[in-house]
Amino acid sequence: MKIIRRSIIIYILIISHFCVNAQTKLSEKYNLMPWPEEVVDNDQKFSIDENFTIAVNKDKINDRLFNATTKFLRRLSGRTGVFIDKGFALTANQIKKASLRINYEREGELELHENESYQLTVLSSQIILTAKTDIGILRGLETLLQLSANTKTEYFFHGVTIKDSPRFTWRGLMIDVARHYQPLNVLKRNLDAMAAVKMNVFHWHLCDDQGFRVEVKALPKLHQLGSDGQYYTHNQIKEIVNYASNLGIRVVPEFDVPGHASAILTAYPEIGSKDITYKIERRAGVFDPTLDPTNDKTYQVIDALFSEISQLFPDKYFHIGGDENKGKHWDENIKIQNFKKKKGFKTNHELQTYFNIKIQDILKKNNRTMMGWDEIFQPNLPKDVVIHSWRGNEAMLKSAKLGYKTILSKGYYIDLLESIKTHYSTEPIPNNHDLSEDQVKNILGGEATMWGELVTPVSIDSRIWPRTAAIAERFWSVKSVNNIDNMLKRLESVSFKLEELGITHIRNRDVILRNISNNQDITSLIVLSKICEPLKAYERKKGGTIYKSFSPFTRFINACTPDALDAISFNKKVDSFIVNSNDQSYKDDLVYFFDKWVSNNEAFIKINNNPMLNQLAPLSKNLADLSILLKKGMSQKLNKEEFKIVSKYMNNLNKPFSDTELAIIDGLNKIISTLK
Amino acid sequence: MKIIRRSIIIYILIISHFCVNAQTKLSEKYNLMPWPEEVVDNDQKFSIDENFTIAVNKDKINDRLFNATTKFLRRLSGRTGVFIDKGFALTANQIKKASLRINYEREGELELHENESYQLTVLSSQIILTAKTDIGILRGLETLLQLSANTKTEYFFHGVTIKDSPRFTWRGLMIDVARHYQPLNVLKRNLDAMAAVKMNVFHWHLCDDQGFRVEVKALPKLHQLGSDGQYYTHNQIKEIVNYASNLGIRVVPEFDVPGHASAILTAYPEIGSKDITYKIERRAGVFDPTLDPTNDKTYQVIDALFSEISQLFPDKYFHIGGDENKGKHWDENIKIQNFKKKKGFKTNHELQTYFNIKIQDILKKNNRTMMGWDEIFQPNLPKDVVIHSWRGNEAMLKSAKLGYKTILSKGYYIDLLESIKTHYSTEPIPNNHDLSEDQVKNILGGEATMWGELVTPVSIDSRIWPRTAAIAERFWSVKSVNNIDNMLKRLESVSFKLEELGITHIRNRDVILRNISNNQDITSLIVLSKICEPLKAYERKKGGTIYKSFSPFTRFINACTPDALDAISFNKKVDSFIVNSNDQSYKDDLVYFFDKWVSNNEAFIKINNNPMLNQLAPLSKNLADLSILLKKGMSQKLNKEEFKIVSKYMNNLNKPFSDTELAIIDGLNKIISTLK
Repeated sequence: MKIIRRSIIIYILIISHFCVNAQTKLSEKYNLMPWPEEVVDNDQKFSIDENFTIAVNKDKINDRLFNATTKFLRRLSGRTGVFIDKGFALTANQIKKASLRINYEREGELELHENESYQLTVLSSQIILTAKTDIGILRGLETLLQLSANTKTEYFFHGVTIKDSPRFTWRGLMIDVARHYQPLNVLKRNLDAMAAVKMNVFHWHLCDDQGFRVEVKALPKLHQLGSDGQYYTHNQIKEIVNYASNLGIRVVPEFDVPGHASAILTAYPEIGSKDITYKIERRAGVFDPTLDPTNDKTYQVIDALFSEISQLFPDKYFHIGGDENKGKHWDENIKIQNFKKKKGFKTNHELQTYFNIKIQDILKKNNRTMMGWDEIFQPNLPKDVVIHSWRGNEAMLKSAKLGYKTILSKGYYIDLLESIKTHYSTEPIPNNHDLSEDQVKNILGGEATMWGELVTPVSIDSRIWPRTAAIAERFWSVKSVNNIDNMLKRLESVSFKLEELGITHIRNRDVILRNISNNQDITSLIVLSKICEPLKAYERKKGGTIYKSFSPFTRFINACTPDALDAISFNKKVDSFIVNSNDQSYKDDLVYFFDKWVSNNEAFIKINNNPMLNQLAPLSKNLADLSILLKKGMSQKLNKEEFKIVSKYMNNLNKPFSDTELAIIDGLNKIISTLK
Repeated sequence: MKIIRRSIIIYILIISHFCVNAQTKLSEKYNLMPWPEEVVDNDQKFSIDENFTIAVNKDKINDRLFNATTKFLRRLSGRTGVFIDKGFALTANQIKKASLRINYEREGELELHENESYQLTVLSSQIILTAKTDIGILRGLETLLQLSANTKTEYFFHGVTIKDSPRFTWRGLMIDVARHYQPLNVLKRNLDAMAAVKMNVFHWHLCDDQGFRVEVKALPKLHQLGSDGQYYTHNQIKEIVNYASNLGIRVVPEFDVPGHASAILTAYPEIGSKDITYKIERRAGVFDPTLDPTNDKTYQVIDALFSEISQLFPDKYFHIGGDENKGKHWDENIKIQNFKKKKGFKTNHELQTYFNIKIQDILKKNNRTMMGWDEIFQPNLPKDVVIHSWRGNEAMLKSAKLGYKTILSKGYYIDLLESIKTHYSTEPIPNNHDLSEDQVKNILGGEATMWGELVTPVSIDSRIWPRTAAIAERFWSVKSVNNIDNMLKRLESVSFKLEELGITHIRNRDVILRNISNNQDITSLIVLSKICEPLKAYERKKGGTIYKSFSPFTRFINACTPDALDAISFNKKVDSFIVNSNDQSYKDDLVYFFDKWVSNNEAFIKINNNPMLNQLAPLSKNLADLSILLKKGMSQKLNKEEFKIVSKYMNNLNKPFSDTELAIIDGLNKIISTLK
């Protein structure tokens, strides 16, 4: 028995080793993201021509699949130029032999742990996509679209057999529409993009100090006074919820209480903790306006609000925020202080828990489950509350241990504009935890968070995408899919394909550069934008410009992104050069960049005729001048005087330019050390 | 008395001559479009900095001006990068000395002949904008935005005094959303662009053979069966009407009857003229399905439909189409033939007039004025019907003579993709008419028409803009503003500024080229796209591909536009060369292009790895090979054999490539003649 067991183990080890290797090889070949659970390829391919048809194994094609198959056909036709003759999917009755046969059992429900698995087989004769639910079919259709390829004479799908299902059931993206309102079309295209990488929760941050964004019929002052006219009507919310549902995406609303309350209190100051005139906040930051937890009217307002909102969002979960309440206005209010004493609360946290429990009653009445940021966590909270971890892992691990469901956003704050490597390497389940197998199951997944202080409809896509695709892979794929270089390769392909869905992250870079150059030749600006990155968010707030919600977000920084393409490439070349510093070809690689930056400055000078461009002049000039010296350094020793000048240039370059930083400083420093 | 009169006339002539000259000079300096009635400049300028403020002379800022001033501030801040401190306009009470003072008398009404005039004075100390109505203020704000400029160190407004008012009261753009559905955001950005060039009527073509695009509660089968799920809800229509109203734009709905009825009859076949199974039409063209004018139920349906629709559109005018009914199904229906005999109608036109008069009763009941395409014109029509001329000027002139109000679209069919010169040169009031002064007043203006067979949300903007800005000038400015070169210069500036409003005509060219190249380097494709133009629409239908509504519109042709930029430039250089064929510098200009096309082919070959690109290979190669020979011809005589080869290349190039045509054929032919 023991021997048999051992050989089984050895067999499994061999197989799994073989699989990992095969997987690695395949992930070099196919640009699938998130990477599926199991991929096996065959040497076949399915040709895409005008006869392409889809059959669904039902008498009637439901809304979700009508939508999904129609979009599938349009995207396929759009990217291949093939004039597909049948513009819509058919039922199995209507067509005997279809190119793509879709088989599923039942309509999926938008709830936790719904079955999203699918199996996909592409042969030269036929494609078969099978799933338990129509939501699984949607996930499989996205995989199939990622398998399209071409030769010079035809388009085709790669021949494969794929079995796939998600690691986590909660794979979310939060979009904050309070700091900057985002119109429906921005949300819709981002929902499409989410579905393309198999995300399934849209967390909609709908109110904050800077705006209250929902029509509330019972409390009309909320949207009338709290939104500058930029809010979603009931019908628009239903439109988004329905749009998401067709994509197999749940929508979780967030109304942040009791802090972050400037907009609410602009409408209903009588439930505030301080007797002041409240105004919609225009700055970014953490502010003091807070609801009064000792006032009955506060609960009446929240009751009316949450009851009305619950009608609009069918999802079981309701996010109440609950974060960043420093309690300053509570401390300054004698009535509230007396209340605390009377109740025996020692801390504001206890008072907030009192508030939370009352809020939870209201939500329960509306058949909703409360969730909130990790500040709401307190061991005496009802057990069905979901804890949303953002400050660290501890709250998540502690609450999972105590039996609370929990999701993670710490590590997925995409608004910080850090390298995608950081986010991709963040494991939702940390390695050294002491949770039992059952307790681990309390970790439902995670969410990328797009806080909105610094984004408008023009720039928001470039802050979310393509980065969020890699985070989506972290939530969907098994833990062992974690090779960064391979991820970056696949991400590049996914990034381009997102254009098909209307995501503007690529196209709007040039729109912004044309804007700042007043429609001159932007070639030199593109070069600069590829080596500059936005200051990481908190630096930007500290060192840089102070932004208001109506500040311009159409400047050079808004055309730049994290992981600047040429910077990555240059820094890599520098590393190769360091190891092979006597090899001429590695020197040539660097000289290529130096020459480019020198001639780029000449092009830049030609267009530099306005204040926005002029802010970049020191960047362009110092980089060009430095490049001349470093190029010289590649072929001869620099003297002391020259090294001094190099230092001066480096000092000049080591500053923010129009709120960006030069992302090649490290590489340049490495070169300089080598030359010494 | 006579002498005095004569000197007054001479004086007027001198003054007006002087004005015209000054105007011409100023229109070289300022990129205003439409060109205002009167512009006088001073040597002042108003500096734009963070202290910029707006004051409105009312106690409360109404919705329209809140919207207009807020957008004004965002656009100004966005294009200058200036962090304007006050993000919203203030009332005169709230601020004593504002940068921009807005004074108006009353809210404008969205109706014919409403006052849209304004006066704008920009001095170094202040800007004053005055108008009778808030709509006039909107028009003035757009002019002011067109006056922004900069030096290297600051942004400013040019110092001017402008008096302005429109020539015509009806300055429209029709968008057909039946052939291809256009989402709300596409319509909104186009409304913004219309307002930017002072257009004031959005004519919304809402149903046709290919789709019925409005929710109808009384007749739900219309949108359920006639739209593939792509229709506007009541709330969405109200949203667009309100959006337009805030821009001072009227919205006129069109429901095309009795022809173009496939979608309506798919829902209600019982009111069709033939007993067949109707289906939503997928092709482009003119089709036979027609409502039965002898069936009472037809009028019941239209009554229910038009009564419900009238509630959604406050505008007085209601367009019933009425075009292109060939009456084939009427001729094939014995009941209808008998009805004609009984009524004594000799032609189908008489039968259609019978139908129109019944429709007009329905509209009258709903307090709406009927308008229709010129086919509805018949001298016994009620006098308040508006005739929309599209087949020629005759109907327009005839109906104006008979006292009907009329507008012109013949000459403004932008879907034909002709050069903007053609449209710009089309005068709404032809020179040799025999109308009295009062009769001329019946010509209310015109409309550009964007028929939707060949456009999707990705490409529609590039078919409408920037061209429609020149048509807008034709409708707004005085007749004498008609210099084409000057218009083209100003149009280029307007075109770029439209990006600010989200118009995608520039950015989406590259999106499409990335698509067809699968995200390779698109430089060589950009070069080709700048010398190729889409086949003019009717050729495209005749010679080229047959499109269905779900065909791909993401191919090379969709990245090309009329008035291809390099083609215009090349053809001009050729003309200069012809006149100065011995001057080396003119030869050099041409050689520059030849060299470019030779090296471009090398770049193209590198990326040519898929079927969509491969369609362009003969174009790129023949042009490169021809260029080599023509370059040789610039310095030495070509021999007979070489001329033969030149002819072969020209033959090869004189064909459509991926539904485009090479727009430099004329120029090339001219060069070849010279070389002979």
